[in-house]
Amino acid sequence: MKVLLCGELGAAEWQAWHAALAQAMPEAQWLALAQARAQPDAVQAAVVANPAPGSLQGLPQLKLVQSLWAGVDRLLADATLPAGVPLARMVDPAMTAAMAETALWAVLSLHRGFFAYARRQREGVWRAHTQRRADEVGVLVLGQGEMGRAAAARIAQQGYRVQGWRRDGGALEPLLARSDVVVNLLPLTPATRNLLDARFFAALPAQASVVNLGRGAHLVDADLLAALDRGHLRHAVLDVFHAEPLPATHPFWRHPRVTLLPHAAALTDPRSAAAVAAANLRAARDGRPLAHLVLTARGY
Amino acid sequence: MKVLLCGELGAAEWQAWHAALAQAMPEAQWLALAQARAQPDAVQAAVVANPAPGSLQGLPQLKLVQSLWAGVDRLLADATLPAGVPLARMVDPAMTAAMAETALWAVLSLHRGFFAYARRQREGVWRAHTQRRADEVGVLVLGQGEMGRAAAARIAQQGYRVQGWRRDGGALEPLLARSDVVVNLLPLTPATRNLLDARFFAALPAQASVVNLGRGAHLVDADLLAALDRGHLRHAVLDVFHAEPLPATHPFWRHPRVTLLPHAAALTDPRSAAAVAAANLRAARDGRPLAHLVLTARGY
Repeated sequence: MKVLLCGELGAAEWQAWHAALAQAMPEAQWLALAQARAQPDAVQAAVVANPAPGSLQGLPQLKLVQSLWAGVDRLLADATLPAGVPLARMVDPAMTAAMAETALWAVLSLHRGFFAYARRQREGVWRAHTQRRADEVGVLVLGQGEMGRAAAARIAQQGYRVQGWRRDGGALEPLLARSDVVVNLLPLTPATRNLLDARFFAALPAQASVVNLGRGAHLVDADLLAALDRGHLRHAVLDVFHAEPLPATHPFWRHPRVTLLPHAAALTDPRSAAAVAAANLRAARDGRPLAHLVLTARGY
Repeated sequence: MKVLLCGELGAAEWQAWHAALAQAMPEAQWLALAQARAQPDAVQAAVVANPAPGSLQGLPQLKLVQSLWAGVDRLLADATLPAGVPLARMVDPAMTAAMAETALWAVLSLHRGFFAYARRQREGVWRAHTQRRADEVGVLVLGQGEMGRAAAARIAQQGYRVQGWRRDGGALEPLLARSDVVVNLLPLTPATRNLLDARFFAALPAQASVVNLGRGAHLVDADLLAALDRGHLRHAVLDVFHAEPLPATHPFWRHPRVTLLPHAAALTDPRSAAAVAAANLRAARDGRPLAHLVLTARGY
């Protein structure tokens, strides 16, 4: 089986993925984009990391496009994506665990005021604040896919009052009204774009906090800044942004109530993801059912 | 039953404790120090928060001294503490949970490099670092009392490789050699004072981190600073200090690899601690066995 491996990977990263995939599936031949272009009729599958638009055109034998990343919103925005070829998201157990770790860290930090203590350290202020029990803190997890469920389970395990919500799961505002912390793990679709806006923040109780681990386009930046600056929201933890890297002039960089991560809440781990990709590639080769398929109409 | 309530409590704090204790044990009479001095023969028990030395002298009917704090090292340093009167530590489930939360937060932060990301945000640097799985991270918890066990259990639940050690539990150095993060939750005794010294740090692998949630006197400050500054240790999270509040001139305040908390890793919660104290006071009154007794020879 000849498999195209391409996308937003530097040379070292391409090599690391190639090594992991070759170990997981030694019977396959792994082609870079130029090699695939030289033998388009031989390419049976593609393993991709947000490939440049057009990369997957003109490969008539393509049976599967397997993404290395969990989010496929940029991939789906490529109008030249071959219609009718199954597209699979990556569901990497190591990445799911990493996302749940980041969500739990953010919730613990917000509940216990550790971001505020970091500010006080910089200001030279020694002052403890009052301590709430975990069961006094409401956490709302938006998104009930692999990552949303894993994060919600870990947070609930610590004793927090956890609620989950999915886009088609009923009214959001009553849940927001009971939430001290909201963790966004929704996929980006036309229906969820700009969900975190002024109206959303106004539905949260005063001094609530927001953790965006989904996509930058879920969030209306100016509305978040306004809600923080008028003191309605306490803090925001942001991993994803409209433009990445976040431009140096963006006010998030220096805002005292924003904690910023460089899209590092959860990285796909080649060691485990290669095995997931190999299993799906073998299923495509052998005509067996495919896992983690994207439904284009749904958007993820 | 007349009970003295005294110690390092401001007026508002004394009132809060008094209210919680009166609710938990309405049949008792709660006396401030001056009131107790006026009727020393009537005082049957004392509930104390590091009282001034001498506070517990001259109370001939004292059946129990119940600490509101978990650590009794300062109380035991009072040479006038009445010999032969049982002394009990506080074991407050809310405080135990809070300590485990702080330990878990510190481990997650160190494992996933969130302190480094906070530095990068201040420097305007967008750069992700490599991501390890939790099972690739060794965590050593020093202390196997209520708090050490609770912290170790929560950390292990996240998939970390956790080891525990107690002072009489065998050789420490082989455990240190396998530890990326050490969390100190030992009681302060003559045997554990200055345990975290240059020799201890040298036994850790390069780039290990230290979390001190025990007592400031467990740590040799200058040795920690030297190990951080020569790049052997990665980071330290410190909640407790030789002098508290930490003096403004202490280098910990501004060290880029030190995260400092104002002795707030876990606070006793009057709502739950009052019930624990009341149960022990009633046991003392009725001649039943007492809980959480300090063994003076052991030092905790």
